[in-house]
Amino acid sequence: MRLKLTIAYDGRSFSGWQSQPNGNAIQDHLERALASIAGAPIRIHGAGRTDAGVHALGQIAHFDAPSKRMEPQSWLRALNAGLSPEIRILACQPAANDFHARFSAIEKIYRYRICCCSVLPPLEYGRAWHVPSPLDFALLAHAASLLEGTHDFASFAANRKKPDESTIRTLHKVRVKRRGSFIALEFSADGFLYRMVRMLTGSLVRVATGKSDLTWFRQLLKCPGQPKTTYTAPPDGLYLVRVVYYRRR
Amino acid sequence: MRLKLTIAYDGRSFSGWQSQPNGNAIQDHLERALASIAGAPIRIHGAGRTDAGVHALGQIAHFDAPSKRMEPQSWLRALNAGLSPEIRILACQPAANDFHARFSAIEKIYRYRICCCSVLPPLEYGRAWHVPSPLDFALLAHAASLLEGTHDFASFAANRKKPDESTIRTLHKVRVKRRGSFIALEFSADGFLYRMVRMLTGSLVRVATGKSDLTWFRQLLKCPGQPKTTYTAPPDGLYLVRVVYYRRR
Repeated sequence: MRLKLTIAYDGRSFSGWQSQPNGNAIQDHLERALASIAGAPIRIHGAGRTDAGVHALGQIAHFDAPSKRMEPQSWLRALNAGLSPEIRILACQPAANDFHARFSAIEKIYRYRICCCSVLPPLEYGRAWHVPSPLDFALLAHAASLLEGTHDFASFAANRKKPDESTIRTLHKVRVKRRGSFIALEFSADGFLYRMVRMLTGSLVRVATGKSDLTWFRQLLKCPGQPKTTYTAPPDGLYLVRVVYYRRR
Repeated sequence: MRLKLTIAYDGRSFSGWQSQPNGNAIQDHLERALASIAGAPIRIHGAGRTDAGVHALGQIAHFDAPSKRMEPQSWLRALNAGLSPEIRILACQPAANDFHARFSAIEKIYRYRICCCSVLPPLEYGRAWHVPSPLDFALLAHAASLLEGTHDFASFAANRKKPDESTIRTLHKVRVKRRGSFIALEFSADGFLYRMVRMLTGSLVRVATGKSDLTWFRQLLKCPGQPKTTYTAPPDGLYLVRVVYYRRR
């Protein structure tokens, strides 16, 4: 029986989503908890491989339960009992046998939080990028709007291991919101390249703080193949908000 | 020159405000940072002695700078450079020579956050009290309103070291707000007894979850002298929000 998990985590304590030799990835913690419940190894598949320090409000993963005797709600309770409070299973639901957390996803939504206070509030440490320089919000929103649509985002991808793979993605929407000294950028797309949200945010902040101009930013989109200096925002402010799948009738 | 500091901290990493033999109290961290700037020991005085795990959004403290040569803004920057990011100086201002962070305070405001979700979101871990039992919000608000005014709060004070000291305090206002699955209780008073906010909250939640009745709660206020079972909410959800002083003309 395939089960779909909705997972939230505080990324600060972990080495990212994907299994690591140090055993401290979210995947490692989940697989250890699953194995201790099932008494046998269970592989888990996540929708997005978040980096170390990146948070999740609604990461999705699936695994195959070895027997149908245990109810999804029992899996949820047993997993939460075995996991540290920095990782929580928010929901556990039965899924179709061909459901795949990663390959069935049709849209992902990431949020990036920026704090523009002169001093970063201690309760925001590790949860927002501290940008104390003056920032042109209208310019930020304008530059962000240029990203919407289907583009080759090669300029905003790090460590490309498979250079033949397409770097074309469709950014459905970039929402830019300001509330007090905080700015939230919300990116929804059919998929994201490695470190894409952090590189988009790093470049947007370059423009908004006047360190680079809009022409430079437009060039990154227009000439995706050229090597160029890149700016990557820290993982602290990044949240995997939601993963969208086709709704079954 | 006397300086007044506005300080915020994430209480999870520290052993409370007041200096401890382990050197991990907020006061210890601040005094070490001050000493390394001034090259001599400096004593700091805080407005409220928050417990281990309790947070502050606007703790106030004062100290006497050894010379007038260093500007308040330079103290702020030097302190923040020397402190861990879990403690931040938000403001540093000159104060009158007779100003005392603790004894000049005329009002303090504490907030207590309760999370009623079935699963505590990991980014709320250590920052809210997780109460997954069904909770009667109207009853909570009603019981809270009974606390307003001048009462003997002896039933809501822990470890009274000086039994002769008055346990009468004036609670100006208890604000009870609900937002989604979160409840915030905001207490403003001329002063608080040791653990008073946590004991008030613990007792209010007893009533709101139906574990104790309103008669029991009223008795705590009416018969302050009698020994009784007490309920103390965990430090996680408690925030020292603000300290009020007379405004000088």
